[in-house]
Amino acid sequence: MNDLTARLRAFAEERDWQQFHTPKNLAMALAGEVGELVAEFQWLTPEQAIAVMEDVDAGARVQAEIGDVMIYLTRLADVLGIDLLEAATAKLTEVAVRYPAEDVRGSATKR
Amino acid sequence: MNDLTARLRAFAEERDWQQFHTPKNLAMALAGEVGELVAEFQWLTPEQAIAVMEDVDAGARVQAEIGDVMIYLTRLADVLGIDLLEAATAKLTEVAVRYPAEDVRGSATKR
Amino acid sequence: MNDLTARLRAFAEERDWQQFHTPKNLAMALAGEVGELVAEFQWLTPEQAIAVMEDVDAGARVQAEIGDVMIYLTRLADVLGIDLLEAATAKLTEVAVRYPAEDVRGSATKR
Amino acid sequence: MNDLTARLRAFAEERDWQQFHTPKNLAMALAGEVGELVAEFQWLTPEQAIAVMEDVDAGARVQAEIGDVMIYLTRLADVLGIDLLEAATAKLTEVAVRYPAEDVRGSATKR
Repeated sequence: MNDLTARLRAFAEERDWQQFHTPKNLAMALAGEVGELVAEFQWLTPEQAIAVMEDVDAGARVQAEIGDVMIYLTRLADVLGIDLLEAATAKLTEVAVRYPAEDVRGSATKR
Repeated sequence: MNDLTARLRAFAEERDWQQFHTPKNLAMALAGEVGELVAEFQWLTPEQAIAVMEDVDAGARVQAEIGDVMIYLTRLADVLGIDLLEAATAKLTEVAVRYPAEDVRGSATKR
Repeated sequence: MNDLTARLRAFAEERDWQQFHTPKNLAMALAGEVGELVAEFQWLTPEQAIAVMEDVDAGARVQAEIGDVMIYLTRLADVLGIDLLEAATAKLTEVAVRYPAEDVRGSATKR
Repeated sequence: MNDLTARLRAFAEERDWQQFHTPKNLAMALAGEVGELVAEFQWLTPEQAIAVMEDVDAGARVQAEIGDVMIYLTRLADVLGIDLLEAATAKLTEVAVRYPAEDVRGSATKR
């Protein structure tokens, strides 16, 4: 994870792209890539979507889009000084308290 | 990273939520969380966005939203059997070839 | 449609909000609202999603989110000087040529 | 507006695509198209974004993406039995009450 952050930072610096990597722009780029990822699944049935990685072409596209999303998420977190794993872990801990297993088992209702 | 993946998998299993965590549903949840993250920046000037972490309230919200995005991205990758760091690294390698530093320095034009 | 555009323009002017209604900001706001709309459907089964308007609470939320998306889309088009209906009609005409009915009947494959 | 709704409905029926046009799938398609629209603006400065329609190529792409977003939004509203203009107008009326002009002039703070 730290290695990816460092590689992305070097990638941007070598190209003098830090000027474009503002929080607003990176949040937009993230939304753009998530849009491409969602588009891979939009016309698939639930069953086709579950089996998407068995299709060589679609699987490669999904993997590439997930890579793109991770790249911009990592870069945005770095630019903001946020530790991505820590942010996710903190949020998971909070959600685990809000949704105790015994109370919500098998139910998707939001709280 | 592997630890987060494992914790999220256990979190879903304890709540019998694997049934909801299909690729289509997780892609939608990811889009939803990215929407919330983008919304944190939408009315900020570029300067305000760069300084967002200095604002205690806005900074905490941004960190929480980034945590949410990371949670669903990690979970989606796990359900699809994709290694998130590997996918990002592979994509970065590909992009580095497409955009050689000497050719694109300081330019944001897409190829 | 023209009436909605005019009302939204007056709404922004009365609040001196044109300064916030830049193309970048409105595109972000649009993405944020679409994220909220998608979130309404994320954990629903296909069958539950089809019947969502029969649920008074969920139906009202979906209608409100669709209204929000339409508001920002209309506002963005206005700020850019784009006629929303014309843009959609032009695109539909183009897509109708790319996907002739006799060739693509019952198939969702992209071209 | 009614004409666009009718044309889109006929377009889907002629291709036997109603089976794909479920609320979940259309919400995903909408998110995908909004992602493409946002991507058009992501690396532009605020000033470049304001002038985007003066660039023939970028302007045509933005108009086409806005058309795509409008197409899926119209189609989703139709499938759900929601009147798009009515939904937007109802929401605008509600927002106008929540943000009285005299209270919020020149401020983007959310309520």
